[in-house]
Amino acid sequence: MASRHYLDNAATSWPKPEGVYDAVDRYQRGCGAAAGRGGYASADAAGQIVERARRRAATLLGAPDPKSIAFTQNGTDALNAAIHGLLRPGDHVVTTDAEHNSVLRPLRDAAVRLGCRITYVPCDAAGQLEARRVLAAVEPTTRLVVLTHASNVTGAVLPVEEVGAALRDGQTLLLVDAAQTLGHRRVDVGRIGADLLAAPGHKGLLAPLGVGLLWVGPRAAGQLRPTRQGGTGSVSESEEQPPPLPHRLEAGNLNVPAIVGLDAALGWIESQTVDAIGQRLAQQTARLIDGAQGLPGVRVLGPPAVEERAPVVSLLTEGYDPHEAAALLDSCFGVECRAGLHCAARIHGAIGALASGGTLRLSPGPLTTDHDIDAAIDALRQMTH
Amino acid sequence: MASRHYLDNAATSWPKPEGVYDAVDRYQRGCGAAAGRGGYASADAAGQIVERARRRAATLLGAPDPKSIAFTQNGTDALNAAIHGLLRPGDHVVTTDAEHNSVLRPLRDAAVRLGCRITYVPCDAAGQLEARRVLAAVEPTTRLVVLTHASNVTGAVLPVEEVGAALRDGQTLLLVDAAQTLGHRRVDVGRIGADLLAAPGHKGLLAPLGVGLLWVGPRAAGQLRPTRQGGTGSVSESEEQPPPLPHRLEAGNLNVPAIVGLDAALGWIESQTVDAIGQRLAQQTARLIDGAQGLPGVRVLGPPAVEERAPVVSLLTEGYDPHEAAALLDSCFGVECRAGLHCAARIHGAIGALASGGTLRLSPGPLTTDHDIDAAIDALRQMTH
Repeated sequence: MASRHYLDNAATSWPKPEGVYDAVDRYQRGCGAAAGRGGYASADAAGQIVERARRRAATLLGAPDPKSIAFTQNGTDALNAAIHGLLRPGDHVVTTDAEHNSVLRPLRDAAVRLGCRITYVPCDAAGQLEARRVLAAVEPTTRLVVLTHASNVTGAVLPVEEVGAALRDGQTLLLVDAAQTLGHRRVDVGRIGADLLAAPGHKGLLAPLGVGLLWVGPRAAGQLRPTRQGGTGSVSESEEQPPPLPHRLEAGNLNVPAIVGLDAALGWIESQTVDAIGQRLAQQTARLIDGAQGLPGVRVLGPPAVEERAPVVSLLTEGYDPHEAAALLDSCFGVECRAGLHCAARIHGAIGALASGGTLRLSPGPLTTDHDIDAAIDALRQMTH
Repeated sequence: MASRHYLDNAATSWPKPEGVYDAVDRYQRGCGAAAGRGGYASADAAGQIVERARRRAATLLGAPDPKSIAFTQNGTDALNAAIHGLLRPGDHVVTTDAEHNSVLRPLRDAAVRLGCRITYVPCDAAGQLEARRVLAAVEPTTRLVVLTHASNVTGAVLPVEEVGAALRDGQTLLLVDAAQTLGHRRVDVGRIGADLLAAPGHKGLLAPLGVGLLWVGPRAAGQLRPTRQGGTGSVSESEEQPPPLPHRLEAGNLNVPAIVGLDAALGWIESQTVDAIGQRLAQQTARLIDGAQGLPGVRVLGPPAVEERAPVVSLLTEGYDPHEAAALLDSCFGVECRAGLHCAARIHGAIGALASGGTLRLSPGPLTTDHDIDAAIDALRQMTH
């Protein structure tokens, strides 16, 4: 394609750092072995890269024990492992209207199947909410609060630290969905006071599709039942899923190529630093918002202050429904972005984007260039002039 | 590594056809988009490759409807989706001692958590069993029979067609684990009379690690509850997991790179034909068995007739425990194989390999050369002479 301006990094990041492609291809051609089931040096080598990725992920999260991080299929799989692994019949859960279907749908399933009671805390017209609103919904026996770190529609960053601090002394656990922040915003599980944190590898962490992670803190570790069981390469004679983490949550072969890519990506993020990546993304997000909100007929949704949002910009464009706009941007201008409800319907009521069938969403990533941003603004200008 | 003789294809196949590496790398660098959540041409292109892989998998399985195939994280994930999606409290299940922990551990979980009753049908000293023994254990209200198509320890092919034919008129469903056969032995879900079939993509199907599949037949489709929920890029406004297959079972982003690899691998298998691949593997298996069983102190386990086994050869070597033997074969001869219980402990009682802590397992794959086989035999000869 002559000129491709990819602005769908909230779905999956692209391009990745060159070293990610190289590491995956080198593993596939040169090693190819499964991890953790040893017996020969190539399998050990695969296992060692997996454990290095785990250590790097732990460092990124400020998690003292790498073994508290389990690799999953994607962020959804990690959220399901947490939600279905924790909830028992009749439990009360507090969550928000900003959540993705990767949270809303497992919670609905728990409501229908286990009689769990779910309280949804509403957001304001910018997609934001105050910690006290979440905390007001928490009852003494509430089992779980599920909170996204940032909305994948509005980009609004939610007050996870304030909620975490307030829950620290009670029995309610906090599960944070860091899909839209990890890799470009500081996420420290200790500072947040989270009990579990789920994220995909293929968004801000710059790994290939096919891997996610679930960090399990000490308060949650004793309560989390494995929802999937199978071979772990450990205590094979036992038909009980081995209780130690991460094996408890890692049944079946790990996706070694994706984890090798994650390892390389985490190395790249370390070298760049999360702060520098985040700063650059904030600049690009500001540039995109500034350019878009000056255009006639374009309405920028979400928080006004760029510090309060992840690099996600939802727009409404007068005269085009979001799907038409996305198709035009792609076919005429090579600007790739996404339209619709973005698997997160509830938030669209708050931000006034239900009638339009959702939003047009543009999301830069760590390897997005200023030229990509300017191309998008220019395309929007030509569409709406 | 100077000379690497990889004989651990029962764990994961290596090398893959060159076109598999190329397809994955080309997708990663040149496309990178997530599938099924459209809006732009690159995302559509990714989606189209996923659907072609689904059609190719359906053709391979003789499944009339590609939509009846869901992509999972691996074979274990597919087996869990079937077992936990079907079983209800108190259900009776029939399975065999030849199963892998990817079956045994979810069944144990269902026994403990739901009070399911599990009957384990024993195998003979070669790891084989007769269909009538499985059928004798089936009661009129038995909900599920779980049967591996071939053991990952002995290679013994189990009589799935006979069991399937006998179950066709009752209400008991048949779940087949085709981990050790798909890609090199004909597997036709109609001819078998299976209701569900699970397999990893990265073994005989020659895809990268990170993808598996679950075929769901019409009798099972109405009963299978999704155990994982999340975004599907479809009916986003509904918080119920969309009931149509495959979306019901595909929450969250698919592992597009692995599925792109699977698509290329299935194309390669089509071009070679399953029969030709299977014939070549049977010849190599026979060559391995013939060479090994002539050696002093080497005992070949499993069925004597090569037609009755998948390309998996378990050995006991006098004077070495299996782990020592595997380490020696690797470090001194570049022969990579696996030792131990292979995540399938029950079968070791039947074949007399519990005292040894399991077996030494050598498993050729579609790209194994005769030279690899001969190198393994030669290494065993030097070890045991």
